Amino acid sequence: MSTVWKRWANRLALTGLFAMTTVPLLHSDEGMWLYNNPPLKVLKERYNFEPSQEWLDHLRMSSVRFNSGGSGSFVSSNGLVLTNHHVGADTLQKISTKEKDYIKTGFYAKTQADEVPAKDLELNILLSITDVTDKVNAAAKPDMTPGEAALARRKVMNELESTALEGKDKNKFRADVVTLYNGGAYHLYQFKRYTDVRLVFAPEKDIAFFGGDPDNFEYPRYDLDVCFFRAYEDGKPAQPEHYLKWSEAGTKEGDLTFVSGHPGRTSRGLTMAHLEYIRDKLAPYQLNYLRRIEVLLKTYSDRSQENKQEAQEDLFSIQNSRKARLGGMGGLQDPVLMGKKAKEEADLREAIAKDPKLKDYEGAYAEIESTLKYAREYFIDNNLWERGQAFHSDLFGKARTLVRIAEEKAKPDGERLREYRSSGIKSLELALFSEAPIHDNLEVVQLADSLGMMVELAGVDHPLVKKILAGKSPTERASELVRGSKLGQLSERKRLYEGGKDAIAASNDPMIQLAKLVDDEARKVRKAFEEKVEEPQRQAYGKIAKARFAVQGTGVYPDATFTLRLSFGPVKGYEENGQKVPAFTNLSGAFERSKAQGNVDPFMLPESWHKAKDKIKLDTPFNFVSTADIIGGNSGSPVVDRKGEFVGIIFDGNIQSLVLDYAYSDAIARAVSVDSRGILESLKSVYGTTDLVNELLKK
Amino acid sequence: MSTVWKRWANRLALTGLFAMTTVPLLHSDEGMWLYNNPPLKVLKERYNFEPSQEWLDHLRMSSVRFNSGGSGSFVSSNGLVLTNHHVGADTLQKISTKEKDYIKTGFYAKTQADEVPAKDLELNILLSITDVTDKVNAAAKPDMTPGEAALARRKVMNELESTALEGKDKNKFRADVVTLYNGGAYHLYQFKRYTDVRLVFAPEKDIAFFGGDPDNFEYPRYDLDVCFFRAYEDGKPAQPEHYLKWSEAGTKEGDLTFVSGHPGRTSRGLTMAHLEYIRDKLAPYQLNYLRRIEVLLKTYSDRSQENKQEAQEDLFSIQNSRKARLGGMGGLQDPVLMGKKAKEEADLREAIAKDPKLKDYEGAYAEIESTLKYAREYFIDNNLWERGQAFHSDLFGKARTLVRIAEEKAKPDGERLREYRSSGIKSLELALFSEAPIHDNLEVVQLADSLGMMVELAGVDHPLVKKILAGKSPTERASELVRGSKLGQLSERKRLYEGGKDAIAASNDPMIQLAKLVDDEARKVRKAFEEKVEEPQRQAYGKIAKARFAVQGTGVYPDATFTLRLSFGPVKGYEENGQKVPAFTNLSGAFERSKAQGNVDPFMLPESWHKAKDKIKLDTPFNFVSTADIIGGNSGSPVVDRKGEFVGIIFDGNIQSLVLDYAYSDAIARAVSVDSRGILESLKSVYGTTDLVNELLKK
Repeated sequence: MSTVWKRWANRLALTGLFAMTTVPLLHSDEGMWLYNNPPLKVLKERYNFEPSQEWLDHLRMSSVRFNSGGSGSFVSSNGLVLTNHHVGADTLQKISTKEKDYIKTGFYAKTQADEVPAKDLELNILLSITDVTDKVNAAAKPDMTPGEAALARRKVMNELESTALEGKDKNKFRADVVTLYNGGAYHLYQFKRYTDVRLVFAPEKDIAFFGGDPDNFEYPRYDLDVCFFRAYEDGKPAQPEHYLKWSEAGTKEGDLTFVSGHPGRTSRGLTMAHLEYIRDKLAPYQLNYLRRIEVLLKTYSDRSQENKQEAQEDLFSIQNSRKARLGGMGGLQDPVLMGKKAKEEADLREAIAKDPKLKDYEGAYAEIESTLKYAREYFIDNNLWERGQAFHSDLFGKARTLVRIAEEKAKPDGERLREYRSSGIKSLELALFSEAPIHDNLEVVQLADSLGMMVELAGVDHPLVKKILAGKSPTERASELVRGSKLGQLSERKRLYEGGKDAIAASNDPMIQLAKLVDDEARKVRKAFEEKVEEPQRQAYGKIAKARFAVQGTGVYPDATFTLRLSFGPVKGYEENGQKVPAFTNLSGAFERSKAQGNVDPFMLPESWHKAKDKIKLDTPFNFVSTADIIGGNSGSPVVDRKGEFVGIIFDGNIQSLVLDYAYSDAIARAVSVDSRGILESLKSVYGTTDLVNELLKK
Repeated sequence: MSTVWKRWANRLALTGLFAMTTVPLLHSDEGMWLYNNPPLKVLKERYNFEPSQEWLDHLRMSSVRFNSGGSGSFVSSNGLVLTNHHVGADTLQKISTKEKDYIKTGFYAKTQADEVPAKDLELNILLSITDVTDKVNAAAKPDMTPGEAALARRKVMNELESTALEGKDKNKFRADVVTLYNGGAYHLYQFKRYTDVRLVFAPEKDIAFFGGDPDNFEYPRYDLDVCFFRAYEDGKPAQPEHYLKWSEAGTKEGDLTFVSGHPGRTSRGLTMAHLEYIRDKLAPYQLNYLRRIEVLLKTYSDRSQENKQEAQEDLFSIQNSRKARLGGMGGLQDPVLMGKKAKEEADLREAIAKDPKLKDYEGAYAEIESTLKYAREYFIDNNLWERGQAFHSDLFGKARTLVRIAEEKAKPDGERLREYRSSGIKSLELALFSEAPIHDNLEVVQLADSLGMMVELAGVDHPLVKKILAGKSPTERASELVRGSKLGQLSERKRLYEGGKDAIAASNDPMIQLAKLVDDEARKVRKAFEEKVEEPQRQAYGKIAKARFAVQGTGVYPDATFTLRLSFGPVKGYEENGQKVPAFTNLSGAFERSKAQGNVDPFMLPESWHKAKDKIKLDTPFNFVSTADIIGGNSGSPVVDRKGEFVGIIFDGNIQSLVLDYAYSDAIARAVSVDSRGILESLKSVYGTTDLVNELLKK
């Protein structure tokens, strides 16, 4: 599974450091709810709404996870999938050539034959959820060391997934054991899997991402942030059991709406000590890292049009993460927010201390604090070697996969590193054998910079650093590694993959040799991190979760895990600095804002919009805001009304929503969507995509 | 004196940490020579050129220092001064209004009445140099502690300057004791001073900085990076004793040329331990800091045209520094360059160890190493409090000056902090009472970010941090400080300045209160830094300098100090990746590169150039490269031929020149200039500035 959650999330700094658990007190429309524990009580009490099981099942199975890092939904019986342009952009980038830049020009396939296959896109539909908490916990026996417990846990999880897939076509199905409340619960998620996905329609970036980085996370907005794909099965358009009906009437201020999507990660349930670790250590590091890559990619982009095309999607992704993390940091440095969280923690700890039945859980807070000592200790080594920040290169990524898969395949399934378990091998192959282009010049620039960062962080006298650089400067060495590698060729990757351990041992490809060189150190720090940080945190957060269930009841949701969740809230404007911000914008507003900004990039409307201006119904609603509880990964999530009809698609949160990583608020934090009516009007009046419109409206 | 050296230098991270001393071995055209120790021997031997004292005096007194951070020259008998557009940009920014953006549109004053006064620009002409080494060293007695020695040294320097100015008009003259070889020598520099400076001509930024940040530090180039000012004295155009004759013939490949300008800082004479400190601690910090500001300003700029105008000059300056430091870091991480320097150091140390007369100097290396321990210890505190990185705000800068001047003025001249000595007071007033606009929104954004950085670096529990934030988040607090301050008004600054200590004590301006709040801590770390780092380094580098003079002779130049130096070298192309890079470009090339880049920003030529294309002699030389040894601060330096005639103006170095901070090389490092012929042809054919051309050619 990818760890790129569109909007908010930092694709390069995500694994392992965040534990997830529950929130103590619910605020109004708060919650990213599990489909097997929906917020029936609050919906009934607050909105007098009682969704049936059919209503829930229909929405769940109409919801699509984009494993490249986003959400979407089926919107026709013929496999049509709607997501954001910025979720589809990863694919648009990969299918682009020097001659055709899909991000810039947009695309419409007039017939199914014209649809363009994505390179390595995997879509998932959630078929079922099974609670396997007891089985997973039973594996980790009380007398085990954390290392043994982690291994035992991993083994049973890998096996549960393999068992779930027995007798099924692994190309079409997928199973994942999901850790919730970071050890409070383990659920087995089974998915339908689509990997033949083709591009149907994308608008030009100038309107999809109108306002660019400056307007990102801002509101009011005027963005047609949509992209249509079609899922295929056995070479024919998929016929999904469930898909959403398109609402031509749309929604209005005050209407209750629902969001069904895949929030990537929140950190609301962390202890204060853990949040302080993020504030003082992790987040400053990540922000420096993101700025470093941002400046690098921007500088590279600006050298030529060709460079720009190569780097634009990564650059957007990094800028987006930088802005999101900066917003999150604002929350962590806000004494009011932190004071509130400290109070909540103190209250829960007091309740635990008072209740003799909960005494056993009291030590959990200190246990987490002591894991953070190790997290600090392994911080740089983990980032450089295991997470590979020393080697910012697609070729290195492929080399590492090849080196590790050769080794892991030889082990029993239960003992493999999680990402090499047999149940996940098809997804791994999809990425490894992707025909997405690799740009050598960009590779050299990125790798040189990251090797330089390695020297800064590990020191020039570190024995491994010396071996890696082999007496060269970072720039020289990067050039030699990239230009000398043949891993850019699919045939060479296939040869090494199929050749297994012997082929890897015999390979003199410099990237393969580099991946081999660092693998011991990387595995060592991963193991130490798992034993000293992750597993003890799982156990400690498991205790806190149990204490919390005892004190506050089980009607709470876990922190986000890039698995399907249900959120809700009315369409609702807000006040900012004494100014009323209306809930809706309309199509006319795009023309007005472009004019006010002098029609310069990123506020230039595409030619197609200028041409069609007289035809467009300018008062059509375009974007709107609601109080639904979302975060990065929710991008592309369908917004539905009480009838379960599609009224919009999430594409952003406002700037005030960026603290939602740590605490929910509906005062002025808002989810931002494209309106179903704005989409339809653009398709009709600007793009004239009659067949697509007819398919959506079933005409 | 300003510490903004155009090109290369980081205006925000410059003070105190760099010591200067000699280089051990000279390479070919190496050297930033003192005018009182010119490279007569090498010029004679290598180029058979023997400049007369008159030749040297003429060039010296035609050379102009821009105290905003660059170089220039007198080019007419009527006070006309030529510098780079990017040196003048600071002034262009300050005189711009919402209605008129001088950077974007350029400017030409048809008559002297149309010339636009700069807001706070000071120009200096070097009148004389006196060696005062013995006097300064005699003050610091051997039995003094480093703290006492530093104070005694400061006292005698302040007094030497005051004495030099006795009976002179301080508005028109200036005196500085310059520390050379960081303690190897002290020279008293006396200057003529001009502060009534008016803008005569500037081209549009699109041609002055054609290629923008992407082409910065690259070659071939096509930039008209020039800007003409006129110095006034007593309300009339200055009549300088010396000015350069304009060469209509220009120069050609192979011709020997000279550069007379103000290189800001080099670090060639540092010990290996000191260079490692820069590589491992200082440079990584500075790069993170520069990227942080770059992303902040870029994000701010992109929100609107107005924001862009407010931030563009700072943004350019930061991008420029980031690129320069990154290039320098490339040198520090290059094992070949560092290996060579290590060898040189080992050789010198061996020579010292062998010679009984030099035994006393042997300990200097260890002494420097031990200062670096303290430099590391005080690193964050020094940056945050004394250098004010916690308070990225013009208003705070003014508040600090007001708070400190009130206190320092009450002390005898010899005991004041260097920048408040009476001989420098006129320059300080010029900056304090500048009418350059202060932009509140930009101030808030910058201050909020820097307060956030303060929390990251000093920690949320630091007592001073708590007092500074007063229970608010960095964003809230920044807004309150900026919006609540009246220091944006010149009248309020004058009132507080004139009111002295009482007025400061009575002020409830929040910025004044902030400056008072941090002053104890700031002074404390400054004092510790001076006593534990700077003074011991001065003494140790003084020893190394003496040892080096003994071993290598005194015919060596000191590291750069933003004082006037003479460099030399022929016009010469080079080879890069097997490709020959010719020495000259021509005007036609600008049109060709613009076309090849799709005519998009920053490769758009101004309308004026397109219009004039048919009139322009396209084969006129435009930019050229030479081997002269330059660095940031040299921007705007005149390039003259053997006759002393003006053939070009330095505006950049190529990317390979960025390691010149640490070691000179003429293999492929080159200085980049605008050709006198390209300037003249543009003035004639594009801008039709007949009077200006006639003045230059004395017609």
